[in-house]
This record gives sequence, C-alpha cells and structure tokens, in this order.
Amino acid sequence: MDEINALSWEPFIQQFGNVVEHGRIVAGAIWGLRPFADTKALHEAVCEFMDSLPPNGKESILRCYPDPAGRLAQANQLSSESAQEQSSAGLLNLSQEESNLIADMNTRYKEKFNFPFVICARENKKVVIIAELKSRIHNSKDAELEKGINEVKKIAWYRIVDATAMESKSAISKM
Amino acid sequence: MDEINALSWEPFIQQFGNVVEHGRIVAGAIWGLRPFADTKALHEAVCEFMDSLPPNGKESILRCYPDPAGRLAQANQLSSESAQEQSSAGLLNLSQEESNLIADMNTRYKEKFNFPFVICARENKKVVIIAELKSRIHNSKDAELEKGINEVKKIAWYRIVDATAMESKSAISKM
Repeated sequence: MDEINALSWEPFIQQFGNVVEHGRIVAGAIWGLRPFADTKALHEAVCEFMDSLPPNGKESILRCYPDPAGRLAQANQLSSESAQEQSSAGLLNLSQEESNLIADMNTRYKEKFNFPFVICARENKKVVIIAELKSRIHNSKDAELEKGINEVKKIAWYRIVDATAMESKSAISKM
Repeated sequence: MDEINALSWEPFIQQFGNVVEHGRIVAGAIWGLRPFADTKALHEAVCEFMDSLPPNGKESILRCYPDPAGRLAQANQLSSESAQEQSSAGLLNLSQEESNLIADMNTRYKEKFNFPFVICARENKKVVIIAELKSRIHNSKDAELEKGINEVKKIAWYRIVDATAMESKSAISKM
C-alpha cells in the first residue's frame, strides 16, 4: 500500500483510472485523498465519491458501462476489465437464443430508464443475469439508479483487488 | 440544435465528450437533460454539473487538463482541442527561457495546490498567461479551485461552439 500511496497522479490514473469504467474523474478525485490505510479504504473513497454525485452524475457513470453481451462485446471492443468480467459470467459464449433475449431485454431496460443495466458479472453467472434483467426492469428509476451504482461499487472492488495485486507482483519482481 | 437534441448517447459523447477534457462523465450527465434550447443552454448544463461536484471532484476535473506548454505539449500528445488552444496562445512556440520559466511555475503551482494551473488559452496570449501564473500562485487553494473551474467553463464554451459548428457544417453538406 505504501507504493500506491506514493504514486503521483499520472501513474495512479494509469493503475486505477478504470476501476470505475472510463472513470478518470473518479480516480483523480480520490488520488487527492491519499494515503489510504488499505485497499478497503481506497474502495470506500471510490464509493463515497460516487455517492456524492448528483443523480445525473450517477446516471452518467452507469452509461459508461457496456451492455452485458452487447454491441461492444460482439465487436470485441470491451475494455480489458469488462472483457474479463463478461467472460467469467459466460456472457461471451451464448446461444443465439440467449443472445437475442439479452439484447432485447437490454434495449427495453434502456428505453425505460435511459441508462444501461449494470450488474457485477464476477458475482453472477448468465442464468442469474438473465433472471435479474427480467426482474429489475419492473423497478422504479430511483431504485434502479441505486441498484446500478451498488453494482458499480462491487465491480470496482474486484478491479481494485486486481490492480493492487499487479502492484504487489511488480514490487516482488523488483526485489 | 434539433439534430443535437436527437442524438443518442454514443454520438453525443463522440461530439461533446471532450468539451470538458476527458469529461465523458460530464457529457453523459448532461445528455440526460436534452432537449437544450440552444448552445448556451447546453453550456449552462455543463457548468451546473461541475458546480454540483464536491471539491475533490472539481480538483479532479482540473487534473485532467494538461500543463500550459507542458510535457504533453512537448511530446505532441495533447488532445486536438488542447493543441489548438495552446497553439492559439503562442504556447507551442516559446523561447527556451519562456519554456523554462513556465515549467518552473507549473511545478511550483502544482506543489502548492495539488492540481495544475488551468487558463483559457483562447482568451489569453502567452505574456498574460505567464503573468497570471506568477500572480495566481499567491492565491488560496479555495480561490484557485474556483478560478480554475471558471477557466474550464470558458474553455468548454469555445469547444461547444466548435463542436456545434461542425454539426451545422455536416448538416449543410447533407442538403
């Protein structure tokens, strides 16, 4: 953690800029709050920053996430983090029927809420994701905004763990 | 303006995502507020969103801007918008003495405030920018945070004008 706390802005952004997808502004905000006691404290700072945003800022964060098994996934244009997450949930290997169903649900979800369905793919397999899509679309916009941001927080936790594990490996290799 | 108001999220981000440097989250937030009466209303929405951020969010926005005549400028790695702005102020064509002076002042400014000096290069020539660097470094952190965000707002206005002018040209060419 000492190494992370000693990072200047640019390497910090390189390492944590995508902890929230395309979230350079989020990472740049928490950089000013170093030192962090541990990765949990770093994650807490990310969560608190998102909680401090007005509702349209929270919606904007959700809009930075790609649809599960969506156009970016099919075009092989996901960020490396998203590709790994969607793959782990089995979303990059769907039957045509599953693929059509998810695409249709994503569209309906976005039409209703004006932001995409976000779910932590590291914690859910595709059957659960499909069930959640079917269920969450009936919620209110406020409830889904809160739910989506909570999923972003979970995704951020796994990305922080990965980003700091890389840091440790790099530190060990320097010994 | 009708064409802009009709844009879906992705083309809107392509067109306005860098109105605030690396500000995809800003552009994504105001996308949800369409329709806008005119470019002034769009700019107003950008300004209001920045005003709604907590102080560390405002600091983070400033950190997304490159130093005037800084490392990115010298390495030819500025965004196209920043390159045009710095060039118009004469910042990409400095004597060695001016270059050293500005580099030194940028470093001192960042050491004091923990965010970079931001100034609207479209409205100021290099002599004024150097004078402002020398003067503003004596301000308080709160004053400079406000001043910096005000400069970001001015920069955003010129970028919106450019982005919407491109839209008009593209509309005319389709007639």
